[in-house]
This record gives sequence, C-alpha cells and structure tokens, in this order.
Amino acid sequence: MTHTTSDLAMFCKKKGFIYPSSEIYGGIAGLYDYGHLGTKLKHNFENLWRSYFLGLNDNFFEIEAANIMPENVFRASGHLENFIDPVIKCSKCQFQDRADHFLEKALQKRMEGHTPEELTKLVQSHHLQCPKCKSNFLPVTIMNMMFPLNLGVGSSQKAYLRPETAQSPYVNFKLQHELLRKKLPLGLAIIGRAYRNEISPRNLTLRQREFTQAELQIFFNPSRINEHRSFPLIKDYPLRTLLVADRSPGKVVERTAAELVQQGLPAFYVYHLVKIQQFYLERLHIPTEKFRLYQLNDTEKAFYNKYHFDLEVDLQEYGFTEVGGLHYRTDHDLQGHGKISKQSLEVLEEESGQKFIPHVLELSFGVDRNVYALLDLAYEDNQQRGNIVLHLPNQLTPFYCAVFPLVKNKPEITAKAEQVYEQLRKTFSCFYDESGSVGRRYARADEIGTRYCLTIDFESLDDNAVTVRDRENTFQERVNIARLIEKLSSLQHQ
Amino acid sequence: MTHTTSDLAMFCKKKGFIYPSSEIYGGIAGLYDYGHLGTKLKHNFENLWRSYFLGLNDNFFEIEAANIMPENVFRASGHLENFIDPVIKCSKCQFQDRADHFLEKALQKRMEGHTPEELTKLVQSHHLQCPKCKSNFLPVTIMNMMFPLNLGVGSSQKAYLRPETAQSPYVNFKLQHELLRKKLPLGLAIIGRAYRNEISPRNLTLRQREFTQAELQIFFNPSRINEHRSFPLIKDYPLRTLLVADRSPGKVVERTAAELVQQGLPAFYVYHLVKIQQFYLERLHIPTEKFRLYQLNDTEKAFYNKYHFDLEVDLQEYGFTEVGGLHYRTDHDLQGHGKISKQSLEVLEEESGQKFIPHVLELSFGVDRNVYALLDLAYEDNQQRGNIVLHLPNQLTPFYCAVFPLVKNKPEITAKAEQVYEQLRKTFSCFYDESGSVGRRYARADEIGTRYCLTIDFESLDDNAVTVRDRENTFQERVNIARLIEKLSSLQHQ
Repeated sequence: MTHTTSDLAMFCKKKGFIYPSSEIYGGIAGLYDYGHLGTKLKHNFENLWRSYFLGLNDNFFEIEAANIMPENVFRASGHLENFIDPVIKCSKCQFQDRADHFLEKALQKRMEGHTPEELTKLVQSHHLQCPKCKSNFLPVTIMNMMFPLNLGVGSSQKAYLRPETAQSPYVNFKLQHELLRKKLPLGLAIIGRAYRNEISPRNLTLRQREFTQAELQIFFNPSRINEHRSFPLIKDYPLRTLLVADRSPGKVVERTAAELVQQGLPAFYVYHLVKIQQFYLERLHIPTEKFRLYQLNDTEKAFYNKYHFDLEVDLQEYGFTEVGGLHYRTDHDLQGHGKISKQSLEVLEEESGQKFIPHVLELSFGVDRNVYALLDLAYEDNQQRGNIVLHLPNQLTPFYCAVFPLVKNKPEITAKAEQVYEQLRKTFSCFYDESGSVGRRYARADEIGTRYCLTIDFESLDDNAVTVRDRENTFQERVNIARLIEKLSSLQHQ
Repeated sequence: MTHTTSDLAMFCKKKGFIYPSSEIYGGIAGLYDYGHLGTKLKHNFENLWRSYFLGLNDNFFEIEAANIMPENVFRASGHLENFIDPVIKCSKCQFQDRADHFLEKALQKRMEGHTPEELTKLVQSHHLQCPKCKSNFLPVTIMNMMFPLNLGVGSSQKAYLRPETAQSPYVNFKLQHELLRKKLPLGLAIIGRAYRNEISPRNLTLRQREFTQAELQIFFNPSRINEHRSFPLIKDYPLRTLLVADRSPGKVVERTAAELVQQGLPAFYVYHLVKIQQFYLERLHIPTEKFRLYQLNDTEKAFYNKYHFDLEVDLQEYGFTEVGGLHYRTDHDLQGHGKISKQSLEVLEEESGQKFIPHVLELSFGVDRNVYALLDLAYEDNQQRGNIVLHLPNQLTPFYCAVFPLVKNKPEITAKAEQVYEQLRKTFSCFYDESGSVGRRYARADEIGTRYCLTIDFESLDDNAVTVRDRENTFQERVNIARLIEKLSSLQHQ
C-alpha cells in the first residue's frame, strides 16, 4: 500500500478537494464539503457522466426532483419497512454501532440476514461488552435509516428525505412517459442528493449521511430484455467479470459480451455492462486491472434485483470497492407505486399492441465514491520530485493548464503571460500563477493535477513561444503562442 | 395581463418544464420537480450564472457543501432565534396560515414587525374567524421555519437542513481563505439547495419548501468598500433604480453608477449592482423595462444588512417580483460564527498590515424564481400561429435547434437528415423529429423554445442545403449543409 485513506484525507483537505463539513464546529460524522478544487473535479465527473450516459439513447433525459418526498412513496418502495439497520447500544455510555458490523468485527464472520433477536443472542452468548466502558449492551434494536420531516405546522404531513434518487424517476415515470410520446426504452437520469442516517459513517466520503448519486433508470418492455439493437457492435467486447462461480479462485475472468449472454444474462443487461466498463476504462481512464464487475449472490442482492453486478474499483486501503451497480429491478418499484398511489402505471406499446408495467434497469453510481476512487488512483507521492503528483485524466482534472511568467517584476513578461492566459482561459480550465520560483510553481501545479504548465520567459519576447511542461513526465517543449490552443486541444483528447 | 400563473403552470406541466412533485400521490404543497425540458433550462441558467459571476474575479470559486448543518451554525447565524413565522390556527378544523399574511389580507394593511401577542389582539379586536369553519382562532404562535434532523441513533445530535446556502461559505471561509493563499477579496459561490418549512407555500415555484439558490459571498476588507479597481470602466453605466425616495412617484429612475456613489452608496457595492444588471440585460436578455433594482427601507431589510437592493423582474400576474438581492451583510455572520465556534475568523492583510474580520457582500439569486421569470417572459400565446411560442434566449433554451426530414418514408431523406443531426448534436443542443407534418413539428418546436428548425427535403438531395426556419419570425432561409455549423454558431451569439 503506497498510501492510506488518512494520507489521502489529509492531502484532500490541504489542497481544497474534500474536508469535513462545518469543521469550525468540530464537523459532523458522515458529512463532507467539497472545496474549490473538489467541486471542479466533482462537476467534471458529473458532466462526463451526463454526456456519456444520456448520449446512449436519444430517449434518455435528465430530470431534477425535490429531495423531500411524501411517506407513501416509501411505503410503496418498501423503504418504510425494510430500510432498517440493527443497532447495538451500550447500557451505560454513549457507545453505539451497527449491530451486524460490530459482531462481524468481534466474531470475524459475516452477519447478513440475522434478526435483531438472533443478534442479541449472539452478543449474550459471546459475552460481548461495550469496548468503551465494558458495560453490558442493551438488546439489539432496529432503526429506519431515512430522515423524517414534518411539513407545515405541527406534524401535519409526514415526509422523508429520499434515501436514493431512484424513487424520483419512478414517481415521475407516468407523466414523463406521456410527455415523451410514450416511447420505450425511456431513460430518466438524476444527478442529485440522497440522505441516509448511517449509524456509523466512515472512510472519508465512502459512507456518508448525505451524498450525491448519478443514476439512470431505464424503463423498458420486459419481453425485449433479450435484445439490444447495438448488441452486435459490442458482442466481442471482453468484460472483466467476477461471477459468483469465480469467487473461490477469486480472480477476474475476461468474458465477451456474447459469452455472458450464453451463460444466461439478458442481452439488454449485458449491453449496459459493456457501456459501463467502457465508461470506466475509456472515459475515466481507470487502469484496466483496477476495474471489475462483481456479481452478487442471492443473499447479498436486494430481493427485488433479479441481476445485480457491483462496479468495483481497486482502492489502496480497501481493495476492490463498490462505486456503483447495474441493477435489474424488474417491475418491483412501479408495481409498488401503482398499488399505493392507485394510478395505473401500465403502458400500451403501440407497435406491438402489448400492455405491461415496464421493467427497470438501474445504472447507479455514487458520485462521491467515484471522485474518491479517482483521487485515490491519481495520488502519487513522488519521491524524486519531492511532491505529490496527481495523475488525473485531462477531462477531469480541475485545471488542465497553468500560465507562469518566469519573473513577476518584468512588465513585458507579465504582460505577455497575461495575454496568453486571457487567450487560453476561454477554451481551457486554466490558472495564472506568478508567486515563488518556477520549480515551486511546478510542484504546486503537480499537486492539484494540472497537466501542462506554460512558462513565459525572456526568450518568449523574441521567439513568441512558451515552454510547455508535461505533468506526467516533466518533459518540456517549446510551442509558439499562435499554435498553443491547437496544440493543447489535440493533447487534451489523446 | 396576457396570461396567468395558472396558464403558465398548466403549460409547464404539459411540456415537461415544471410540475408538482410526487404528483401520483397528490403532490405536496411547495415542492416541484423539473421535467426533461425544465432541467435543461435550469442547468443552462446555472451554467450561465456560474461562468458570469465566477468570471468576475480570478479569486472567486465555487464550493459544494452538505445541506445538513449542526445546530450551532444556526445559533451563530441567528436563525435559531429569528427565523420564525407567526402562525394562526383554527381552534376546531385544520385551517392554518401565516398570521401576518392572514391579517394583511383580512385587514388590508401591512403587518411587519408585530409580536405574536399583538397579532392575537388584532385577531380578537376584529373578531376574525376561521374562513373554513367560522370557529375562533387559537392564540398566534411562533414556528421556526427550519427543518430539524436528528443524526445517529435517537436524538444524539441535532442538526438542520440549511435555510439558505450562505451559511456554508461562512463556515468554510477560514479554511478556504488559507487554502487560497489569504487573498482578498475572496468569493465563494454555491449553487445548491435550501429548505424552509413555509406555512403556506404558493405561486408555483416562487415560494417553495425546497429550492435552489445561486449565491456568491464576497469576503473583503471593509476599509476598501469605497473602491473597486474596475469602477472607472462602469461609472457612467445607467442603473434602473427605485430608491426609497422614489417610492411615492413609484417610478424607476436611471442613475449612473457614479451618481449612486455620490448619493452615498459604496463603490464596491455599486460595482456589483452594475454587474448584476448587466447579467440580467445582456446575458439573460430580460427586456430593459422589465428589470429594476429596488432599495429596501430599514424596516424591510434584515437588521444585519446595511445595504439591500432586491433584484426584481416584472412578471405577468405579480408585477415586479424579487428574484434575487444584493446584500451587504457586514461582518454579522463571521462575528457570530467566530463567537460560537470560538475560532478566530480575523485575517491579516499582508500588504496593508491590517487585521480585521472580513465583511461580506452577498449576491443572492433564487434559481427557481429566475427560471420562473424566464418562462413567464418568454411565454406567448401566438394567435396567428395557433400555438404557444416560447421566446427563450439562445443560450438558455433547452434545444437550440431541431432537424426534420420532410418525410419519414424516404430513406435518402432520412439518411441525410440523420447525418445532419449527428453533425450538429456535437456542437448544439439539438433534437431529431420525424413525426407528423412539418407544420405540426414547427408548432411543437415553438412551444419548447427551439430557435431554429432545419428541414431536409427532396431538394436537399440535389443542392445539399436545408431550410432553416427562425422561431422568432418564421422566416426561412436556405443554408448549405457544409456551412450549417458556422452559420448556427454565428446566429447563436447575436
């Protein structure tokens, strides 16, 4: 391991990427803010995600919905009943934890699917005590992880902060389907906040109480699940899969899309697995060996998910970690909403004359987790240079380039540098820096992932060229100012 | 009045701009969702705002912060004590309203600054009764408008959904100021959600319980409030002001920036008034006579605002309506946070050697209100064409152009149309439509504000040109396909 999460957290704060929220008040567990650089990185990720996934089909659109939703939404979705965690609390002090997590650590075995009573028995039979004050525990209880709200005066109307963005497109499906001329598949995406009252949030932004999701819900005709118009184009694409059957060897197996279909996965599902992997490898430039598609088994996946792969990235401290998932949610959610709202969510497909409740394929991404993964992979403590180098891809890094006048006390040089800066900032994310030695400025630029640094020196006054220095290898090249935009543009998309 | 809010609301829903949230469950008062077109319009506004206001100074940055903040933040800001509304409730039925609003309507006079006891007396002395069931009212009470949350198990940590984005930059100021090398002025912007438990939300998205703000907090040295480096460039710019002194004539008076400074407003403040008006007139293309800067008097403005102008746009049903404000908040907030957090928020300005708590100039915009204003101004029920025409500016409209094959059953024509579409969509927001007559397609395009419709017809196969039709005047022009991108680009920025 070259660095720990705590190294990364310190770095992220020091540079203005990510830091604890309301920190002058001591912060709150599970809440983080994005500083001036983190916000740029996060937005770049969101914009890339948006253009890529909405670009998959002309009938995919983004919507934006209130984060507060009425209680009936979560009665229908099952969150009211099932979105619960077992809680263990000390009988004396303030200590509390998720009971299953606490027992997993204490007993060193997995704890899925136990009732609170079973967990309480385990605590008692193993004589477990509070790690803080050595007192006994209270019986394990249950807590719903949604944040409740009362709207209006008193408790007149009960509502919740949504625990996932997904319910908003489900509730909006009927109207949007009509607005969009009843075509299927219909994709409704949301990049927005979700809220979960985690009992023990942890690992920087990997498990927060408030977080951003980027989710695309694709509503489709279930009788067409075994087809996708563009499947032939990707049938030989090798997917980095770890199926349930691969668990005991524990190694990723490359399988083509066609092979996965032969093994029983529907073509419509596999097509989107391919598009997701391509997004990670070709757009986010995650190294191939750091990415895998991890199939969940029946006890791990939610009961309503018929097929479920986690999208995993290999992180320094945690190994392969979930950053998203591809979930075939069937008609579970629309069935529920139809029942509770008493509105028919059935559609009539004109071309086939079929009537059905659409099924949903959910492409789900934790934005904070993906940003974490990008930072974790990009971070290098470069001993030779004596500074951190952040190897963020060109499309994602907060500042693609920087402009430096060699010295700040020569008006001819600073004037020329400002000219170059004014020219470049219209096309690229770019900053101007004149303070300290050029070496120091290179180091600072490396640390925030700036790909190219352009220095205007005395020679520039004669040859109208600048020195372009590449973050990746520190190579320097002389480029004429008139050719800069063209040059930097072509480098950006390499 | 050419249309009412209810006309606009119906239109916004029918087209997919804005509609009640969770509508299959009957909706919730004060919560709205943005459909596929509304989301594009809202994002276009946000992106324009972002590039314009962050572009004012290299030291202005956007941050993104948790919407949940701990109780002490609002103890410091004064929201815990002062962010309250008087509530009047029927003693028998469910009727409730804001007491001051209810009395204003009943007694036809303004009701600012009354205590609950005074309001109760007024209710009694005027023998006011519940409009629903004619019963007597309970005494007027007070309700805090913030939504409280308990984090963790039980009520272990009290927090609130922020009622304005502003507190996040204040709480982040100390760290960001250090990160950004202690330069002032420092600007921290947030485009994000805020939450208020309005007792009687109303008027579509003008008063919601959950809404988006775009706010820029500028931290500066108060001893420099009478200067701005670029003031000379805008000193003759005419501002559309309605000062307190202008109220009885009730007319906007154009005053240059220099005149306002002569009248006692600080140059730093007036400079930003100019930049704001330029944003409305030159970027959002609000007609000049529909915009004004409305000065608040001492009883209207919050006690901590030393100078306060509302930014107002003239709406069809409501007349001039607040869509934002320019607030000189002094050091009120940082003083409060310094006191409660016990952290020094004082800074040392290196160049002058001065030590001080920075003052704050807040540029505040309600995103939903601005989007409402844009739709309200753009909406025209065009009798001649027999359809709505949405005159949205080119930079804001959801789709700038559309591509139509004249007929959908001629492969040569649809192939050429698809080619054109594939070419254009990389540069412009663009859609493809082949269903119905071209006239019907023009009408649909008008209704969602599409500026140019490009039709590929039989002639196109020979002359490689398309018919470009302008939404504004329905004029048609023949343009060669090879010149399309150049032509549409130059038209876009006119």
